[in-house]
Amino acid sequence: MKVSELSAESGVSVATIKFYLREGLLHAGLQTAANQADYDGGHVRRLRLIRALIDVGELPIAAVRATLTAVDDESTSLHDAFGAVMHGLDTVPPDDTAPDIAAARREVDAWLRRRRWKIEPDAPAPHALATAVAILRQFDFPVTLADFDEAAASAERSAEFEVAYARGMADRAAAVETMLIGTVVFERALAEIRRLALEAVSARTERRHGSGPRRPV
Amino acid sequence: MKVSELSAESGVSVATIKFYLREGLLHAGLQTAANQADYDGGHVRRLRLIRALIDVGELPIAAVRATLTAVDDESTSLHDAFGAVMHGLDTVPPDDTAPDIAAARREVDAWLRRRRWKIEPDAPAPHALATAVAILRQFDFPVTLADFDEAAASAERSAEFEVAYARGMADRAAAVETMLIGTVVFERALAEIRRLALEAVSARTERRHGSGPRRPV
Repeated sequence: MKVSELSAESGVSVATIKFYLREGLLHAGLQTAANQADYDGGHVRRLRLIRALIDVGELPIAAVRATLTAVDDESTSLHDAFGAVMHGLDTVPPDDTAPDIAAARREVDAWLRRRRWKIEPDAPAPHALATAVAILRQFDFPVTLADFDEAAASAERSAEFEVAYARGMADRAAAVETMLIGTVVFERALAEIRRLALEAVSARTERRHGSGPRRPV
Repeated sequence: MKVSELSAESGVSVATIKFYLREGLLHAGLQTAANQADYDGGHVRRLRLIRALIDVGELPIAAVRATLTAVDDESTSLHDAFGAVMHGLDTVPPDDTAPDIAAARREVDAWLRRRRWKIEPDAPAPHALATAVAILRQFDFPVTLADFDEAAASAERSAEFEVAYARGMADRAAAVETMLIGTVVFERALAEIRRLALEAVSARTERRHGSGPRRPV
């Protein structure tokens, strides 16, 4: 298909498609004339992937490029590609030696061992989780890692499904893409569900308490 | 305390503190001399809040300002302030009329009614959830809203705790701040736990399958 058809099919403007081609996020089409190229279903799929990472995952262009490089690198095993994709989603942790974060990090590591979750030493997620726990405590939330056990068990069941689903894909690129989309988009969906639950519970509580400056006297 | 002491206490550099003062994110200290002001525990707490929103919530400065305005506006009820804070976290949805998103949106609305979750008509989360569902389907994930029932029940239990905890705070500003921190930081913690679960399950599956180009022959 022509670039105008690719634009209609994907819902991405021609100008944006050309930007992604220049930035190396989208592979070039098959050159059919001096100023014309032919695009296929693979381009439509890649455009959808890029839009999902930017619009839903809110990744900056540089992170999208790094993540897509991991998708396209055929020399790594599926697991290493999954890891590269997931590690690329987290911003690199600052060299944070605050004592409360270091203490939370030791608790996170013990919790991961207890769960028998094998995590690469350079994965950014344990540090990010420790930082979150330390911040909750700074704001006096009485939180321990055990409070996340239920969420972890549920995440593990969901991960079993997602990993099996991705590994069942016909080819390697589709498997890594599926893992990436699953991670970014399920994460977003679950965050939105939490926000909806908070709003619903707050509304219910407001009716019960009926307090606050707006209450008619 | 002096600005240098505020910096030491909060871990935020003096230059950054001055930037937040200029940007109106941090309220001015009590002027004690022409070029000196006195800061207190409220400033430390506000700096921690700003850093959590930026570092953990990854909010841009404009969104931090909008969210803090909702925290500081004493004229709204607690529930309205919670709503303003949570709606401020989501980017405003584009005027998206794609038929697959519109279809998913109708499913989201029916699901919310079924759960008896009362959500404001202008809340961005239902649209964001519908978009996530539509994208998962574009990538052939066979997902329905019922798949999120378990996550929703768990989010509701967690929200009951968080809302009660925030409402139990001594004053209104602390309640809204606590709700904001809880939303942003728990969300991040749960996302990191999902990434950890995916990595752990992928590692376990890799050992079982032992497939991939790196397998020694």
